[in-house]
Amino acid sequence: MAETFDKKKTIDLRHKYIGPSCKVFFGQDPIKIVRAKGQYMYDERGERYLDCINNVAHVGHCHPDVVKAGAMQMEILNTNSRFLHDNLVEYAQRLQATLPDSLSVCYFVNSGSEANDLALRLAWQYTGHKGIITLDHAYHGHVSSLIDISPYKFHQMTGSQHSQLVYVAPSPDIYRGKHREDHPDAATAYSDEVENIIQDAHKKGQKIAAFIAESLQSCGGQVIPPQGYFQKVAQHVRTAGGIFIADEIQVGFGRAGTHFWAFQLQGKDFVPDIVTMGKPIGNGHPMACVITTRKIAEAFMSSGMEYFNTFGGNPVSCAIGLAVLDVIEKEALQSNAARVGRYLAELLRQQKEKHPLIGDVRGVGLFVGAELVKDRSKRTPATAEAQDVIYKLKEHRILLSADGPDRNVLKFKPPMCFSEENAKFAVDRIDEILTDIEKTLGLPVPSNAGCANHNSCHGVLCDKTVQKQHGNRNSHLNGVDS
Amino acid sequence: MAETFDKKKTIDLRHKYIGPSCKVFFGQDPIKIVRAKGQYMYDERGERYLDCINNVAHVGHCHPDVVKAGAMQMEILNTNSRFLHDNLVEYAQRLQATLPDSLSVCYFVNSGSEANDLALRLAWQYTGHKGIITLDHAYHGHVSSLIDISPYKFHQMTGSQHSQLVYVAPSPDIYRGKHREDHPDAATAYSDEVENIIQDAHKKGQKIAAFIAESLQSCGGQVIPPQGYFQKVAQHVRTAGGIFIADEIQVGFGRAGTHFWAFQLQGKDFVPDIVTMGKPIGNGHPMACVITTRKIAEAFMSSGMEYFNTFGGNPVSCAIGLAVLDVIEKEALQSNAARVGRYLAELLRQQKEKHPLIGDVRGVGLFVGAELVKDRSKRTPATAEAQDVIYKLKEHRILLSADGPDRNVLKFKPPMCFSEENAKFAVDRIDEILTDIEKTLGLPVPSNAGCANHNSCHGVLCDKTVQKQHGNRNSHLNGVDS
Repeated sequence: MAETFDKKKTIDLRHKYIGPSCKVFFGQDPIKIVRAKGQYMYDERGERYLDCINNVAHVGHCHPDVVKAGAMQMEILNTNSRFLHDNLVEYAQRLQATLPDSLSVCYFVNSGSEANDLALRLAWQYTGHKGIITLDHAYHGHVSSLIDISPYKFHQMTGSQHSQLVYVAPSPDIYRGKHREDHPDAATAYSDEVENIIQDAHKKGQKIAAFIAESLQSCGGQVIPPQGYFQKVAQHVRTAGGIFIADEIQVGFGRAGTHFWAFQLQGKDFVPDIVTMGKPIGNGHPMACVITTRKIAEAFMSSGMEYFNTFGGNPVSCAIGLAVLDVIEKEALQSNAARVGRYLAELLRQQKEKHPLIGDVRGVGLFVGAELVKDRSKRTPATAEAQDVIYKLKEHRILLSADGPDRNVLKFKPPMCFSEENAKFAVDRIDEILTDIEKTLGLPVPSNAGCANHNSCHGVLCDKTVQKQHGNRNSHLNGVDS
Repeated sequence: MAETFDKKKTIDLRHKYIGPSCKVFFGQDPIKIVRAKGQYMYDERGERYLDCINNVAHVGHCHPDVVKAGAMQMEILNTNSRFLHDNLVEYAQRLQATLPDSLSVCYFVNSGSEANDLALRLAWQYTGHKGIITLDHAYHGHVSSLIDISPYKFHQMTGSQHSQLVYVAPSPDIYRGKHREDHPDAATAYSDEVENIIQDAHKKGQKIAAFIAESLQSCGGQVIPPQGYFQKVAQHVRTAGGIFIADEIQVGFGRAGTHFWAFQLQGKDFVPDIVTMGKPIGNGHPMACVITTRKIAEAFMSSGMEYFNTFGGNPVSCAIGLAVLDVIEKEALQSNAARVGRYLAELLRQQKEKHPLIGDVRGVGLFVGAELVKDRSKRTPATAEAQDVIYKLKEHRILLSADGPDRNVLKFKPPMCFSEENAKFAVDRIDEILTDIEKTLGLPVPSNAGCANHNSCHGVLCDKTVQKQHGNRNSHLNGVDS
């Protein structure tokens, strides 16, 4: 618990030895965290912070069952998967059991980036095609192949030009995107965009290996695709000989509340060809996984190239992974995510009725976004205001972040043990902060006092009927949750 | 310790759930390892194996100091590096202290693959060039950008064609390569090959971003480049506006015995622009690092793109990394590597005098190779015989592997606590096995009874004078160690 260096010295050493591209939270006044437990983090002075952002600490920081499983296995054996080990196969079996039968073959890796890169390799090898379709504002990882398919990253780059084999489809964001909540069939409209890209590629003589998307776009601004979108996209992509990669790295593992995997929100008739999983699966331990079909796995093998990952699937990682699955079950964290997430979204929706700065509230389970706008009709992003909220929440010892292409979406993705009390505490502080900011800005109270039917749809994916019932101008009804 | 499944069931589940491209050791009769300690691994029946191959378990399997450091930190905090933490900066400072001053900026990642990919990104950004020069038979990792620069991998692929921006230079292997031990100046000859590649690229209007090489080529066949080669290559590459990346993932961290980093074997006048490190640094915990110059780090930042790695540099990884450094020091493992490695190479050299199948013995510290050949003058690779040795050693409960492009190099890279007794035991068994194989093959005893001067050079890098003194036909004098 004691510090090795005082905070100033830590900052100095960080400037000296750590790559300047590696940013800290709250750059102007970073936080030094020395310990954490559950949904709380503690700084060097013992101040407690409510953690609304660390989705990696999925079952809660330093969960004793997970720590114990890791420590025990570290004492006994930690080696590579060229030796047989029960943890590896048991964990693979347990993971598979959470997925549709056709997704049955696992590759264990160390990070979401390694997982998505391998997914691309599988797609390229299986299809023999090169083109990848990604969504605008997507983030899929930091290795070079993934920067290429991450507009969220390559748009940051001065003078960037993205790979000619990468096609960017519009993000299916019905609040700010190309087709909005007033569109009679946004799912079809957005999937037609993908189909047009495929046709354009074909005209240039190029072929599509895969469509890749987060099942819920996270860095892209907590975007929830309209139901049916993935089915339609998958149909177009498969017709073109490509496959569908669902990136569940940020959003899988029960976070969506009603389902274990976020792609399942689209309906039972949708099954991806590859699912990648990462961040939460080891509760912070570096591990990730790719699961695909037997057919794709066999095509990959037919290349003749061995796949070896030094650390991937080692007995310690697998012991930790098994413990995480056990805790999710034992503590009913998926249903906690559903219940608390519904409550959190409800609280935020109430705030939306009160605060003109809140343009939209959307979410499923403990994946919730509140998009701040300066003007509700123009939907002008309130970027500076969102930053202001984040910094002021920090003063109240609440850790929240603002993300999305305009950095104006307050983004909740807390550990899954987050409670209703935590949600109330955070939203009450947001209420106070927004009241202050709006007073300073002289903003009026919003005219639309929210949707009368919201109780019928929050926490689960709205179907189009419900969306229509809600009407067009209720911008908080963003595909899913009000 | 108890098994969850019996071995047959483990194998069945593995076939069912694990990607078929993920191979096991001894595919015909794989080993199930349930625990390990120091340089020993134990199967499900309690049989003890001497581990000559697991360089990842650097300070010994399940070293109690490392386990304790990891377990303690897991209990307290494991989060990402956007929060300040002392472990991160302390570890960076400690790693930097092992390197020349100019290599001062660290990026922490989860695997050697992530490290080498980031090294490429740094090189591309810093130089503005695209071309990468790699060595033949090189292996630098499994993500797609690294398959492109790993002939060891892409040669395995049926119908492969490698990226047009990748140039393959001859491996500086003076036993089997283009320029051999009879060349008066192999270092210059091999570096001239690189210079020619640069000139050819320029003629095509392409520019070189980096030359990348393992400081000692590992999968490529335990190749030790002639002294001075890296200096000359670096000069050519830098003149062309490129940089030098030293991949120390397999061979760094004291394994070379006389030096902490294998690139230092080339001499004090050689400093790479980027060093990547991985496998051993966490003793099996998934972690790796890229260290570069301030100038390159600042150029990378100037792209405007943040570098964030979810798990990289987390407090647990850094605690483990610090413990590994402590153990290396406390147990004097680097000098153990020097002493035991020298003894091991000496024993193998004695075997070379006796066994015609041994064409070459080379090594530094606990990085030792014995290359098997069917015919010493033609140097015909004894691939099947090397496999035979490996399988027969397994019956004696010794784990060794055969690697290199022809899979005929017996490859020692044991945990650093490997003892002289272990070396003697392994080599005695190799002696018996080779005697049997040679009897079956009807091979004669070798005519050249070894080098009279070998005592003067083993365990350290030969300079050219010594090489010349040893004469041309003593193929065991392979740049370094006899």
